[in-house]
Amino acid sequence: MSRALITDARPWGGPARDVRIVDGTIAEILPVGTPPQTGETVIDGRGRILLPSFADVHVHLDSTRIGLPFRPHTGTPGVWGMMLNDRANWRDAGVPIAERTTETLARMIAHGTTSVRSYAQVDVDAGLERLDGVLAAKDAHRDRATVEVIAFPQAGLLREEGSVELLEEAMRQGADVVGGIDPCMLDRDPVRHLDLVFGLAERYDAPIDIHLHEPDQLAKFSAELIVERTRALGMTGRVTISHGYGLGQLPREQLVPLLEQFAELDIAWATIAPSTPLPTLLLAEHGIRLGLGEDGQRDYWTPYGNADMLDRTWQMAFTNNFRRDEDIEHCVAVATVGGRSVLGTAPALNGRLDRPGVAEGDRADLQLVTGETVTSAVMDRLPDRTVLFGGAVVADGLELTGAA
Amino acid sequence: MSRALITDARPWGGPARDVRIVDGTIAEILPVGTPPQTGETVIDGRGRILLPSFADVHVHLDSTRIGLPFRPHTGTPGVWGMMLNDRANWRDAGVPIAERTTETLARMIAHGTTSVRSYAQVDVDAGLERLDGVLAAKDAHRDRATVEVIAFPQAGLLREEGSVELLEEAMRQGADVVGGIDPCMLDRDPVRHLDLVFGLAERYDAPIDIHLHEPDQLAKFSAELIVERTRALGMTGRVTISHGYGLGQLPREQLVPLLEQFAELDIAWATIAPSTPLPTLLLAEHGIRLGLGEDGQRDYWTPYGNADMLDRTWQMAFTNNFRRDEDIEHCVAVATVGGRSVLGTAPALNGRLDRPGVAEGDRADLQLVTGETVTSAVMDRLPDRTVLFGGAVVADGLELTGAA
Ligand SMILES: [Zn+2]
Ligand SMILES: [Zn+2]
Repeated sequence: MSRALITDARPWGGPARDVRIVDGTIAEILPVGTPPQTGETVIDGRGRILLPSFADVHVHLDSTRIGLPFRPHTGTPGVWGMMLNDRANWRDAGVPIAERTTETLARMIAHGTTSVRSYAQVDVDAGLERLDGVLAAKDAHRDRATVEVIAFPQAGLLREEGSVELLEEAMRQGADVVGGIDPCMLDRDPVRHLDLVFGLAERYDAPIDIHLHEPDQLAKFSAELIVERTRALGMTGRVTISHGYGLGQLPREQLVPLLEQFAELDIAWATIAPSTPLPTLLLAEHGIRLGLGEDGQRDYWTPYGNADMLDRTWQMAFTNNFRRDEDIEHCVAVATVGGRSVLGTAPALNGRLDRPGVAEGDRADLQLVTGETVTSAVMDRLPDRTVLFGGAVVADGLELTGAA
Repeated sequence: MSRALITDARPWGGPARDVRIVDGTIAEILPVGTPPQTGETVIDGRGRILLPSFADVHVHLDSTRIGLPFRPHTGTPGVWGMMLNDRANWRDAGVPIAERTTETLARMIAHGTTSVRSYAQVDVDAGLERLDGVLAAKDAHRDRATVEVIAFPQAGLLREEGSVELLEEAMRQGADVVGGIDPCMLDRDPVRHLDLVFGLAERYDAPIDIHLHEPDQLAKFSAELIVERTRALGMTGRVTISHGYGLGQLPREQLVPLLEQFAELDIAWATIAPSTPLPTLLLAEHGIRLGLGEDGQRDYWTPYGNADMLDRTWQMAFTNNFRRDEDIEHCVAVATVGGRSVLGTAPALNGRLDRPGVAEGDRADLQLVTGETVTSAVMDRLPDRTVLFGGAVVADGLELTGAA
């Protein structure tokens, strides 16, 4: 039975407490100064803020160049052009893909992320190489983070011969989630695209995650098709829409009925905090599970991203123009237990999240961050952090502890 | 005659050079390994990137709480409500305003900013107290930064008795620029508001800076009134519009004719890189002088802002969704010499800025930043920086050197 005592830590910035952890779960919230029991590892909170650790529910580990020489962006706008640019260049990093994914995941963990849903692009160029790369990172860090892998048809399913077979093979080889993308805009046959994705999910009893970059009424149409299939196939609680930029911009009178159906079918949403944000608080009002992710990080798609979900949380607050503590704390909740709810590792949350994830009975996936308040911690994004996974310290001061 | 030699520095990320500075001006760009001359101070570039130092052309030093205990935001949306919130609280910081402005300006300089245009709110509540506070900071750092002060009628000119007289008194007491704000929306008498602002500017031979938060057609109307007065009074090159959010959102066919008039009358623009950005490249195409600023920083208006213009440059690139090196370098140009052109301390620039400010004859207001390329330096925002003002090192590693 593993036991630990976090001393002098402020859950969600509140008064200082000691926190007893037994077998990876928060067992007791205690007064400061509680004497450690025999065999209990003591983790000194030093008055820092105790939060649930981050969940990054939308990251493309399989294209990362973090830590490699900076490469000027060469993509052209549009999903297909960007895909072709990535395809032409992703192998030329000078470092095998498994090493890159493992190093980037290490940095993510070091910065506070212990739940991850990563894409692995599966297409006729990469075959299962990129999947193998992401699975290698998952395995290398299995004692530091929970990782789900999405078999992701970035190049569509209908444009290139053999794509469907490869996606199915990816599911057989250990991918956890079936990916889809822009059913209208990319494959130009939304019914066939979605039927393939939902069919595969049924066959492998797997959840679904669909990238939706489509604009306004086209996004709405694709979302309606997704809703119909989720309902017809009894996939309640198993479908996530990623991005949904166009949906977020719909007039309220069109968006709200859609959100009501998302709520009914418990369809989740993943955002990367783009400069034009989703209506975050409206989603919370409708009880939509919402998680945050980093997307591509300094890769062939974008020079942005740094493996730091605290930075991304700042970005979410900034793009929403949030100023009040309660709203900025809501972003922290989305970036932590919100993401876990998308992954199904925390209960679905209704309405605005009230400082969850640091109570008795919660899994001890935690982080200590520096700040007077949660909001000031988000504003300052300071490096003095400690990260716990299942009650064990896995990172300190932005470095993994006891790394292989 | 003061002389310095910066060794092993990469101007705009190009090949390493030595840079000779004589009497505050870049005298020669030389090959690496040039032997220093007698009496020459050597500044070790250590292979870092040499850029012009930052110009922050829109900052409210007079409301800063940087370095003070974090205070949750209590404002309500809207300029008047926010002004009332600031008015009710700004004196309660526990530290005199002159100390706060001086400390915040120190942090700005430490992070690379040596040209500043700061607001000083002048109203019936504050009188000239806030102006005195900003003037004190300007004086304290006169050997480290060039500071212009705007006498700023944040509460309008027509809503409270005595406002106009106070603004004129501020100009007599040493303010450099006459401020104005939302001629329609705040004072609700745009002609009278603008005639007062332009009249004062004529009388004191001072430039003008007008905060424009107004939406769409109202912003367009106010901008047209500003254009008319600029033309009628021969104020070419002496007027800046700040924010101009609404203008940036106008349909192109309405915005372009306005930009053509801005270009003709050399009306400048200051932006703070909001999440909905200005059409940055369109402004460059029209030869509009554009500078970047930080606005309020962790004050009664907003919890955001950290005195770091490199961070704000990242924000400008991010909100514009820029990915290519040339576009991200353009943001650096805007944040440095672009701002100086707004202040009139660098020549007006036409079109896209081509890595300026680090050539023979340029004033040696410079910074050394860490990165492989300019773009990666913006992405990483690392702390190993050195800041020069008039050829002398004023900050190193985010701390002032030889500070009082
Ligand atoms: Zn993505
Ligand atoms: Zn302002």
